[in-house]
Amino acid sequence: MNLGWTGKLKDNLAEIYAPIRGELEHVEQLLRVYLLNGQPYLQRLMEHGLQLGGKRLRPAVLLLAGRACGSLREEHYLMGAVMELIHTATLVHDDVLDGAKRRRHLETINVRWDTETSVIFGDYLFTIAIELTTQLGDREVSARISRAGRRLCEGELRQIAERGNFALKEQEYLEIIEAKTAELYSCAAELGAYFAGAPHGIRESLARYGREIGIAFQIIDDVLDVAGSEEIAGKSLGTDLQKQKPTLPVIRLLQIVPAEERAGLLQQLKNPSPENLSRLREQLVRSGAVDYARSKAMEFVNSAVHHLQGLERNEGTIGLQAVASYVVGRQR
Amino acid sequence: MNLGWTGKLKDNLAEIYAPIRGELEHVEQLLRVYLLNGQPYLQRLMEHGLQLGGKRLRPAVLLLAGRACGSLREEHYLMGAVMELIHTATLVHDDVLDGAKRRRHLETINVRWDTETSVIFGDYLFTIAIELTTQLGDREVSARISRAGRRLCEGELRQIAERGNFALKEQEYLEIIEAKTAELYSCAAELGAYFAGAPHGIRESLARYGREIGIAFQIIDDVLDVAGSEEIAGKSLGTDLQKQKPTLPVIRLLQIVPAEERAGLLQQLKNPSPENLSRLREQLVRSGAVDYARSKAMEFVNSAVHHLQGLERNEGTIGLQAVASYVVGRQR
Repeated sequence: MNLGWTGKLKDNLAEIYAPIRGELEHVEQLLRVYLLNGQPYLQRLMEHGLQLGGKRLRPAVLLLAGRACGSLREEHYLMGAVMELIHTATLVHDDVLDGAKRRRHLETINVRWDTETSVIFGDYLFTIAIELTTQLGDREVSARISRAGRRLCEGELRQIAERGNFALKEQEYLEIIEAKTAELYSCAAELGAYFAGAPHGIRESLARYGREIGIAFQIIDDVLDVAGSEEIAGKSLGTDLQKQKPTLPVIRLLQIVPAEERAGLLQQLKNPSPENLSRLREQLVRSGAVDYARSKAMEFVNSAVHHLQGLERNEGTIGLQAVASYVVGRQR
Repeated sequence: MNLGWTGKLKDNLAEIYAPIRGELEHVEQLLRVYLLNGQPYLQRLMEHGLQLGGKRLRPAVLLLAGRACGSLREEHYLMGAVMELIHTATLVHDDVLDGAKRRRHLETINVRWDTETSVIFGDYLFTIAIELTTQLGDREVSARISRAGRRLCEGELRQIAERGNFALKEQEYLEIIEAKTAELYSCAAELGAYFAGAPHGIRESLARYGREIGIAFQIIDDVLDVAGSEEIAGKSLGTDLQKQKPTLPVIRLLQIVPAEERAGLLQQLKNPSPENLSRLREQLVRSGAVDYARSKAMEFVNSAVHHLQGLERNEGTIGLQAVASYVVGRQR
C-alpha cells in the first residue's frame, strides 16, 4: 500500500526531513497498520485518502519538536499518525466545502467517489484518530487533541459565517486561521515537547512556535490560492475567491484601494465570474496586497523561530527552523 | 433557549420518561450550558441543531439503565448529554447524505443553512462530545465512546458502498445497522450500568439490551421510510428508496417475489421515479415484506427485554421495558 509521500518530495522538504527520515517512516508504518485493519470496502478509500495530505508536515513538526527537547518515544510516532489522520479528515471535508476537484495531482474523494462518502470518510478518519489517542490513556493528551478538534471546527464555522463579509478585519481573519489551521500545528509542536519530557516553559514555547508557523502556513495557502500555479500546487486554486472568503490579500487590497475604486472592487468580489476572477487576481498581485500578505507570514515565521531560542542547537531545533523557512517559501 | 423536547412528546414517551423527568431536564441544562458557551455566530445554529434530535431516547436509555442498576451520578448526566450530541452530529451529516429537507417538522441544517455548514457543524458537535468525555478522565469510557464513533462511521460507509446492491443479504443488512445505529444504544445502556457501579455481567446484559433495541429501532426507521406518514414523522421519507439503499423490507420483498416478477422489481428499484416509488411502496406493504420487517424488529425487542431478567424490578427496568415497546410501536 503506497501512502504516497516517500520519494515524492519536491521543494527542500526531503532535506529538512533527513534527520527524521526513519522516524517518519515509522509513522507511515503505523498509519498502514491502523488503516489496513479496515474493512475491505474501505481499502481503496483509505489508500486514496492517505495520499491526499502528502507532505506529512504536522507529524514532522511533532517529531522534530521531540528531538529538539530530547529523545523520541513510541508516543511520538503514535501521535504523529494521529496528527496526519486529523489533518486528512479536515482536507476531505474541506474539499467538500470548496467543491475542489484536485489535490496533490489526484482526484478528491468527492470527485472519485461522492459527497456522501467524503462526509463519512472524514468522520471516520477523525474517530480513528480519537480512538488511537485514547489508547495512550493520558488525560492531558486527550484533552489537548479534543480541544484542537473543536477549535478547528470553530474556525471553519466562523469562516463559513464570514463568507461574503468583505468588511472583515485583518485581526478577525487571523483569529479564524489561528483556530482552523494553527491550532493543529501548535498541538503537534507542544506534544512533541511533552512526550520528550520537556518542562512547562519549553512546551509553551513550542506551542507558540507551532501556532505561529501555522498562521504563516495558512496565510501562504491563501496567497497561493490567488497567486499560485495549479500545475505546481497540484490542486484546485481560486476557490477562496469563488466562495467569497475574505482572505488576507483581499482584506489588504480593500484597505489600500483608492476610495473611488472600492465600490467597483466589491462588485467584482461579489460576482466571481471567470473574467472578474482573473481581473481580481491580477490586481491582488499588482497592488502589492499579495506581497503584504507574504510579509505578514514572514513576520509570524520570524516570531516563531524566536520562540526556539531557549532550546539547545541540535538536529531538532535546526529542523524546526528549516520547517519555518519552508512554510513561507513554498510554492505548493 | 428552547432545545425543543419538553412538552412536545407525543406517543407515550412522556409517560415512559416520567420517573426520570427531572434527570432528563438536568441533561438538557448541561446541553444548554455547553452550547451557550459557543461563539455568537454559532448560537442560532446550536438552537436549531439541538431541536433536530428531539426524542432524547439515548440519554433516556442511559439514565434508565443507571436507575435500573443503582443510583444516578453526575457522570450519567454528562454522558447523557454526550449521547445526544453524538446522535445529533450523525443526524446533521445524515441529512446531508440523504439530501433531506425536513426533520421534526423543522428545516434541516442543509436547507436552512447549507451543505458546508452542515458538514462542519456535525464535526463540531462530535468534537464537543469527545471533549466532554475527556473531562471525565476515565480511559474506559473514552475508549467506549471513540469505538462507538468509529463503528458508526464504518456502518455508514458500508451502507454507502452497498447502495444499489439489491443482492445484499439480511445478515449483511443487520451487520450494517448494528454498527451505524445499535452501537450507540448499546454504549448508552452499558455506560448507564457502568456509572451505577454494576458488575461486569450486568453491564454486558445492558450492552446487549441496547444493541437489540438499537437494531429494532433502525428496522422500524427503515419501515417508516417506506410505509410511514411524513405528516406524523415530521421528516422527509422515501429517501432510502431514492438512494437505492437495500433495507429489510426491500430485501424481504426480493426474497418472496415470484421469480417471473423479480427482473421487473429490480428495474423499478434501480429507477426510483415518482411512479415507481409509489408502486414499490404499495407492493412492499401488500406483499407482507413490511410486516416481516416489523416482526423481525419485534424479535429483537423481545430478546432485548430478555436481557433485563437478571435485574431487580424497579423504575429503571420498567422504563427500559417500556422503551423497548416504544421502539417497535412508534409511528415517528
